[in-house]
Amino acid sequence: MKRKIIKPSLASGFRDYLPDEMAEFQRMTDIIRGVFERYGFSPLDTPGIERLEILTGGDKNFKKQIFTTSKERGDVPLALRFDLTVPLARVAAQYPALKKPFKRYQFGKVWRGEKAQAGRLREFLQCDVDIVGSRSGMADAEIISVAYETLKALGMENFTIKINNRKLFDALPEAVSFPEKKKESVIRALDKLDKTGWKSVRDSLRADKFTKKQIDKIADFVATGAVSSRETFAALRRKFSGSLKMESGIAEMENLAKNISVLGVPESAWKIDLSVARGLGYYTGSVFETIINDIPGIGSVCGGGRYDNLVERFGQASLPAVGISVGIARLFTAMTELGMIKKRPALTEAIILNFDAACEEYVQSIASDLRKGDVRTEIYLGNEETLKGQLAYALNREIPVVLVAGSDEKARNTVQIKNIAARIQTETSIKDAARKVKEVLGKKVLMI
Amino acid sequence: MKRKIIKPSLASGFRDYLPDEMAEFQRMTDIIRGVFERYGFSPLDTPGIERLEILTGGDKNFKKQIFTTSKERGDVPLALRFDLTVPLARVAAQYPALKKPFKRYQFGKVWRGEKAQAGRLREFLQCDVDIVGSRSGMADAEIISVAYETLKALGMENFTIKINNRKLFDALPEAVSFPEKKKESVIRALDKLDKTGWKSVRDSLRADKFTKKQIDKIADFVATGAVSSRETFAALRRKFSGSLKMESGIAEMENLAKNISVLGVPESAWKIDLSVARGLGYYTGSVFETIINDIPGIGSVCGGGRYDNLVERFGQASLPAVGISVGIARLFTAMTELGMIKKRPALTEAIILNFDAACEEYVQSIASDLRKGDVRTEIYLGNEETLKGQLAYALNREIPVVLVAGSDEKARNTVQIKNIAARIQTETSIKDAARKVKEVLGKKVLMI
Repeated sequence: MKRKIIKPSLASGFRDYLPDEMAEFQRMTDIIRGVFERYGFSPLDTPGIERLEILTGGDKNFKKQIFTTSKERGDVPLALRFDLTVPLARVAAQYPALKKPFKRYQFGKVWRGEKAQAGRLREFLQCDVDIVGSRSGMADAEIISVAYETLKALGMENFTIKINNRKLFDALPEAVSFPEKKKESVIRALDKLDKTGWKSVRDSLRADKFTKKQIDKIADFVATGAVSSRETFAALRRKFSGSLKMESGIAEMENLAKNISVLGVPESAWKIDLSVARGLGYYTGSVFETIINDIPGIGSVCGGGRYDNLVERFGQASLPAVGISVGIARLFTAMTELGMIKKRPALTEAIILNFDAACEEYVQSIASDLRKGDVRTEIYLGNEETLKGQLAYALNREIPVVLVAGSDEKARNTVQIKNIAARIQTETSIKDAARKVKEVLGKKVLMI
Repeated sequence: MKRKIIKPSLASGFRDYLPDEMAEFQRMTDIIRGVFERYGFSPLDTPGIERLEILTGGDKNFKKQIFTTSKERGDVPLALRFDLTVPLARVAAQYPALKKPFKRYQFGKVWRGEKAQAGRLREFLQCDVDIVGSRSGMADAEIISVAYETLKALGMENFTIKINNRKLFDALPEAVSFPEKKKESVIRALDKLDKTGWKSVRDSLRADKFTKKQIDKIADFVATGAVSSRETFAALRRKFSGSLKMESGIAEMENLAKNISVLGVPESAWKIDLSVARGLGYYTGSVFETIINDIPGIGSVCGGGRYDNLVERFGQASLPAVGISVGIARLFTAMTELGMIKKRPALTEAIILNFDAACEEYVQSIASDLRKGDVRTEIYLGNEETLKGQLAYALNREIPVVLVAGSDEKARNTVQIKNIAARIQTETSIKDAARKVKEVLGKKVLMI
C-alpha cells in the first residue's frame, strides 16, 4: 500500500519545545511549583476536554473562542478548555466535600479556538493558583505575593504587577452618570488601551453613545495615578468623594496594599493601574496583570483576580474565589528575548562510547553502575563506528563527561574518564567509575 | 441576564485528579522522570493538537479513533493526538538538525476519540521514552531496562514484561504457508487473545479463511513457551528449522535477552510471549507489553517496541526507532487497587490560625518567615472564626504543624507551635519559628 508523503509541520498557532528549550521550560515549571507549594497550594488535574456548556455557561456567543471536538453517538457537545479557572469552578461545585478554603494549583494546557495570528499561540501551558472559599482580603494579598515570588524565583527583576479593582468600575455608572447597563462598554473599551491607545478607547466609547463629558470623566478616572498608591487613593477620594461604591473599592485596594507589603512585596514591584479591566470575564473584585518593563509589548505574563460568583453557574451557593494564572509560555518567550534562557543540548551527564562489538556487555555494565550511582548516563547507540566520530557527537551535545572502554580497558577492568571542560583524562577501575564521574561533575558544578 | 444552571460534571471517559490523589500522581511522574533522565533521555513537548493527516498518515479509515477539533477559516483539518509516538516521528522528520540518536522523553495527555465504555478513559497521561536513529539491539535492551527500573522505582514488585518480535510474524506466511497479505489477519486475531481467549482467535482466523492445518500451526507457534527464554528459543528453532526469517527474529530476541540481563533486568521480571502483537500499528521488530501479575485484567501498563519505518511517512530516509510508553493513569489505578497509593489531603506542612483581626499583619509576617525558610505554609483564610473551628480544619486536612498567634503572642513576639502527631505545644519567639517548625517536621520525617 503506497501512502502519500505527509509534510511534517504544525498548524499555525502551535509550537514544539525541543529538548534544548524544554529542559529550561521544565526547570521553570519546577521552580513555579516549588513557590506554589511553599504557599500551601496542592495540585489538581482536570481533563483538557470538558462538556461545552461547562465552558460557556450556556452562553452561545461564547462558542467562537473555543475549540470544540468531534463526538461519538450519545456524547453531549464537548470542547477543549480555554482556561483553568472555569474547570476549577466546576470542581468546586462538583465535589462539595472538598474542604474550604480550597487552595489548589494546576499546570495545564489550554486552547484558544481563534483565528491564527502571527505570534499568537492557540495552545499554551498555564500555571494557576487559586483560593476558593475565602472572602478575606488576605487571600487577594497572598495571590499577589505568590505572583511576585514566582517571578523573582524565575530570576525576573524588572516587572510591574498592575492592580485594580472591578468595584471601581461598578461605581462608575453612578459617579459618571451613565446607565448601569453601559458599564460593560467601558470595560470593553478599556481593554483596547494597551494595544491601540487612548484614541481608540474614546472612539469606542463615542460609538457606544457616551457624551463628551462622560468620556472626559472616564478618562480622568483612568488617568488617576501618582507616584505612590497612597497618593492615588487620595486623588480618587478627592475626585469621587461621596461615592460609597467607589469608597468600598478604594478601601479594598488600600487593605490589599497594606497586606502585600507585610508579605514582603516591595512597592517598586507593583502599582495601581485603573485601566486594568481584564475583559468582560467573571471578575468581581481585585484584578491583576503583570508586565515585563523592558518588553511591555509582550503583554501580561501573569494575571488574575477575584471572581466571587463563578461557582454559582453550577447551582451552588456563592463561593468566593481569587486566583492568578502565570502565562509560562509568554514568560518563556520574554526570558528568551532578555537572554535569560540558556539552551541545554542535553541533560545527560556522562556518555560511554561504544566502538567495539566485543565490549558491548562491558559498556552496558558500566552504564548500569553509573545510573545506579545517580549519574545521567547514555551509551552511544548511533551509526558512527569510530571513537572520533562518537566523541564529536558527545562534544556537540555538550555532555560534560565522556567514558571510553575498549578491549584494553576491559582487559584491565578499567575505563577512561574524560573531563571535557578541564581536558583531563584519567583511567579508573570500574568499581570506582561512578564515584569518579560524580567527582568530575561535582567539580564542574563548583566551577560554574 | 439569567442563565440556566449548569450541572457540574464530566463527560464519560474523563476524570479529575483531586489534590489527595494528584499529589501522589505527581510524585509518580517525578519518579518516572528521574529514571528517564538517569538513562540520558531529554524532555520534549509537542502540542495536543496536530494536523489530522500527521496522525492518520493520510489513512482515512484511521479517523474514527481520533477526536477532531473545530477549525477556523484557513485551517487544515486538526485533531487531538492519540499517542506521543507519531508526534515524535513528525519532530524527527521536521527538525533534521536534531542529533541522532535522539533520545527523548515526553509526558503528555493523549486522547482516544472512541465511544465511551465503562472504565475506559478517553483522555490520559502517557510517559514515553524513545531512541530515534539507532538500529542497535542495545537500544531495545535499554528501553526494556528503563521500563523495568521505572516500575521498580514506583514500588512495583510483581510484574511481567512480555517480549515478542514482529519479525516472527513476518516469518509466519512462509513457515505456515499462507499468503503474505494475510499476515495482518493473524495480528488482528491475536490481539483478541487477552480479552476473549483462544476460541475467538480461532473463530477470527477461520472467518479469514485459514485452513485448520494453518490455524493449528499458528496456535502451536503462539503456544511455544517454556520455563526459560533459552528453552523457548530452542523450541522455536526446532519447530521452524530452516526458516531464515524466523531465525533472524529469534536471534534478535536472544541478543535482547542477553543485553537486558547485563543491564540488570532479572529473568523473573520478563518472559517471551509469542502472542504479543500490539495491533496493526507501526511496529517492525521488538514489541513489549507489561502486566501486573496480581491484576492482569487491568491490561498492559507499559508497552512499546521498535518501529523502523514510521518516520518515512514524512518523506524522510528511514530512521529506525524504539520506545516505550508508561501508561501512568492505568498504573495509578493498579497501584490504588493494590493499596499502594496513600492519599494525602494536603501538601501543606504548617498552617497559622487566624482568628484575631488585630493580628492579621503579625500572622502574615510569620507566614512570610516560614515560607522563606522553605516550609510549605498556609494562613487560615476561611469562614471559621474560632480557634477551635480553624483547628478542626487543620486536623481534617492532616497538616502536621499548627501555629497559633493571637494578641498575647503578638505582645510577647512569640507564636505557639503545635506538633500534632506528638501532641506537644511550645511557645517560640518568632525569629526562631521557621527553625523550630522545620525541627518538628524533621522529627516527624525521622519517625516514619
